[in-house]
Amino acid sequence: MALELRPVEWVDDRVRLLDQTRLPGEEVWLTLRSWRAVAEAIRSLRVRGAPAIGVAAAMGVALAALESRASDRESFLADLDGALKGLAATRPTAFNLFWALDRMRQVVEAHGHLPLGELKVRLVAEARAIHEADVLANRTMGRHGASLIPPASRILTHCNAGALATGGYGTALGVVRAAHEAGKVALVWVDETRPVLQGSRLTAWELVREGIPHRVIADATAASLMARKEVDLVVVGADRIAANGDTANKVGTYALALLARAHGLPFYVAAPTSTIDLGLPSGDAIPIEEREPGEVSQLHGILLAPKESPVFNPAFDVTPAELITAIITERGVVKPPSREGIHRLFTL
Amino acid sequence: MALELRPVEWVDDRVRLLDQTRLPGEEVWLTLRSWRAVAEAIRSLRVRGAPAIGVAAAMGVALAALESRASDRESFLADLDGALKGLAATRPTAFNLFWALDRMRQVVEAHGHLPLGELKVRLVAEARAIHEADVLANRTMGRHGASLIPPASRILTHCNAGALATGGYGTALGVVRAAHEAGKVALVWVDETRPVLQGSRLTAWELVREGIPHRVIADATAASLMARKEVDLVVVGADRIAANGDTANKVGTYALALLARAHGLPFYVAAPTSTIDLGLPSGDAIPIEEREPGEVSQLHGILLAPKESPVFNPAFDVTPAELITAIITERGVVKPPSREGIHRLFTL
Repeated sequence: MALELRPVEWVDDRVRLLDQTRLPGEEVWLTLRSWRAVAEAIRSLRVRGAPAIGVAAAMGVALAALESRASDRESFLADLDGALKGLAATRPTAFNLFWALDRMRQVVEAHGHLPLGELKVRLVAEARAIHEADVLANRTMGRHGASLIPPASRILTHCNAGALATGGYGTALGVVRAAHEAGKVALVWVDETRPVLQGSRLTAWELVREGIPHRVIADATAASLMARKEVDLVVVGADRIAANGDTANKVGTYALALLARAHGLPFYVAAPTSTIDLGLPSGDAIPIEEREPGEVSQLHGILLAPKESPVFNPAFDVTPAELITAIITERGVVKPPSREGIHRLFTL
Repeated sequence: MALELRPVEWVDDRVRLLDQTRLPGEEVWLTLRSWRAVAEAIRSLRVRGAPAIGVAAAMGVALAALESRASDRESFLADLDGALKGLAATRPTAFNLFWALDRMRQVVEAHGHLPLGELKVRLVAEARAIHEADVLANRTMGRHGASLIPPASRILTHCNAGALATGGYGTALGVVRAAHEAGKVALVWVDETRPVLQGSRLTAWELVREGIPHRVIADATAASLMARKEVDLVVVGADRIAANGDTANKVGTYALALLARAHGLPFYVAAPTSTIDLGLPSGDAIPIEEREPGEVSQLHGILLAPKESPVFNPAFDVTPAELITAIITERGVVKPPSREGIHRLFTL
């Protein structure tokens, strides 16, 4: 098995980050020294995937603490506040971003009275704890999920919900990994996931690295594979889950859920509880990021559509809870998803 | 309105052909002098779309007649037979290809006794007649189809079933054109249509040229537009329609039909009767072309997936007749599609 992949890592008071925009062609690691560099990396998808964004943002706040030259508490807290706000403004949909920034804010609130040096140490420790907890959650989630996977499964996944999308190991791909370790995976169908191609560029790259059998398909191919009985189940990650189980994930997820239903296939969502937004009663209220037209109309400077053609490029869509067979979390599986079942995860 | 676009044209005993692999960046016209050049153009998608393939193949046979140096009948007929077989082997799914080659073969059978010069004239005339009839069929189909389109419609289409896919005017896009001329089109949603991007590269190019309002989307976006009630109907072309109405079309069509059904939207197929294969009882028997992995894993030499990752790249899928609201042909609308309704088209 390949060495454990961690796309974001806290090393020597810097953030070491694998630039995912360069994959699969090149494996380029960046060293980030400022929260602004982290914010840029999040905005430009050098790091992406809700849990990985959360981890990176927490580390960004830790960098902000270290890079602040403020000697008085008030200026220091103002510096931190600027970083918290700047990082929160990078991307709107992934709930883990706001969850992680909240955790960092709580450290400031709980320990704001400590000497600044001490507070900085606490912030760095919290960011690292968020990272470690995420990897641990994914491994637990993988075990829970693998128990749902029958032997010889042909699993379809969309986007990248792997090690690259998280602190490490992955959510949906963590389930695939654990199921593969248990000898249950015959094949993974990898949706290429236009426009940014997180499936063909990133998920396939991870599966090659792990030696898990897979085939890449254009997104539009999934339905005919289902009709030909070449898919046994679908598992995807999540960017934000509302209190009733409605789930925002990469655009195309909702279609897969409908297609799975039409073909009688289980449709699983795997995500840590840090992706669940109890403040939102349903998916209608989840903010959906609209990204720049160029992601669809160009690729590395090559024109894929006429310059005159407008583009609509939402990054996510919302899958209603009733289309989801189960939500797999590190605290257990909610099957079928329900407001009560999700609430119970937080009262264990 | 823009000048009528004809992607293939018989000019001065040559085939003039718009190289669709170069769009939307460049408008390059090729002059083909041999049936082998036509076969290459079909195989490499310089000309594509079932009706346009049929027209080009017929012209290819006419070129074969002109380029033959045979002075005796037997050698001449052997040359023609080589061309008919070579052209038939270019692509397996589009029925118009075989239909057009059959028409050319019938000319040979009916007029094989004529002096060779005379027979050549008849073959050229037949290829040109096939072309003109296709354009005429599309205009008639457009009128039939437009009558089904309500005012202010937001129409979703997949792939390119426009002028570029036919002798001219288009099938699905012919319906859109006619509806637009009748003032009924609010917006066309253009699926980019991976992997070859016939939607963003070709359909958007045609719509820009005609001034028809449109927006390009990644294929995976269609379902969420339907959920947000931003689509009123779907119309697509066809590559082969079985006797019961099951329809092979660009991969992704079947998914759209299922999604349209789930959202209560009409789903129309527009195609000339030359696309209907009465010899096949149902869609199960339609041969589905599998194209090379590189269409998915590379773009202009840029690697979109790891070299080690296998790809599955079927060009078409089959939509069962029961998901199709109506099939629009030049001989009338079959609504809902049925074996009887389709049979009736051929007995009018």
